[in-house]
Amino acid sequence: MPRPSVREDIVVAALKTLHAKGFNGTSVQDITDAAEVPKGSFYNHFESKEELAAVALDRYWQKAQASLSLLADEKTPPVERLKTYFRYLAGIARRGEFRRGCFIGNMATEMPEHSLVLREKLSTLFVTWTQAIDSCVQEAQANGSLRRDIDAAAIASFLLNAWEGALMRSKVDRNARSFAAFEEVVFTALAP
Amino acid sequence: MPRPSVREDIVVAALKTLHAKGFNGTSVQDITDAAEVPKGSFYNHFESKEELAAVALDRYWQKAQASLSLLADEKTPPVERLKTYFRYLAGIARRGEFRRGCFIGNMATEMPEHSLVLREKLSTLFVTWTQAIDSCVQEAQANGSLRRDIDAAAIASFLLNAWEGALMRSKVDRNARSFAAFEEVVFTALAP
Repeated sequence: MPRPSVREDIVVAALKTLHAKGFNGTSVQDITDAAEVPKGSFYNHFESKEELAAVALDRYWQKAQASLSLLADEKTPPVERLKTYFRYLAGIARRGEFRRGCFIGNMATEMPEHSLVLREKLSTLFVTWTQAIDSCVQEAQANGSLRRDIDAAAIASFLLNAWEGALMRSKVDRNARSFAAFEEVVFTALAP
Repeated sequence: MPRPSVREDIVVAALKTLHAKGFNGTSVQDITDAAEVPKGSFYNHFESKEELAAVALDRYWQKAQASLSLLADEKTPPVERLKTYFRYLAGIARRGEFRRGCFIGNMATEMPEHSLVLREKLSTLFVTWTQAIDSCVQEAQANGSLRRDIDAAAIASFLLNAWEGALMRSKVDRNARSFAAFEEVVFTALAP
């Protein structure tokens, strides 16, 4: 009789392994080994590595989502919230010695061209993530602490993409310089 | 007797295959198959896939470097050059249907953690690339067409990383919206 926790063990192991070694660098066997379950059990729960990767992305996002509360904290001025949020993300990268990057960004770069499942999952996550930033940008524009001559949606989308680029660069440099440049340029240039 | 062109065939095939399928998604066999050379011949020329990937990055950069002339064209005002340059890069992505991204950015995201060869190669390329943008930013600041309250080096580094992030996003969305947001935010917010 299959252990009821096998599916969960596979998802937890998949998130960890896929984030560390990448989609193409991870085999189904790597995941079942890490989960300490028989390889054969994989296909009782998932049709493909792609399907599992989409589930792992949701799991990653569930955790990441908690930090979005930093963007919605009404006790803090909205521009400060944006700064705090990106500093928080920078802190995660620093504690991981800039080695792993963002699982969502990594998957976006690495997903196979034909994978509609992963592309649609990533697209949805980026939209949700952008909206959280967008709301905060709109508040900052409304209270006059962020320039208003650029559409909030364009700023939000730009910030998220630029952040992903800074993270990518931090993997190469193994330092926080790209985050410092991000903060300096963004918060100087977007000031009203 | 080995064909003298085998090494060159391998490099050309490696660049194409690694760019399309990623570092971890490409095996030595994939490369020798694409080059139409015997698998055994690989190790006469390269010690590892990593070493070959570093050579492929140099080859990619040799081609990419030609476009840096757009940033140095003294007949065009420097801010226009920056715009033209990023539009040129966006055009390449558009013609490739946003499928492949930047080989340098892809490798930065995907390289194995322990690969010092690739990390140092990528670091060097990013520095050279940033310098070309930096010179143009400095010219624009000097002639008063770009804001001067942010260090040119920070702007240049930020622009390149933000661009890489926009490219990553265009792979997910399969459209040019991230490039439009990049251009709108950057050239509005960095205006003097």
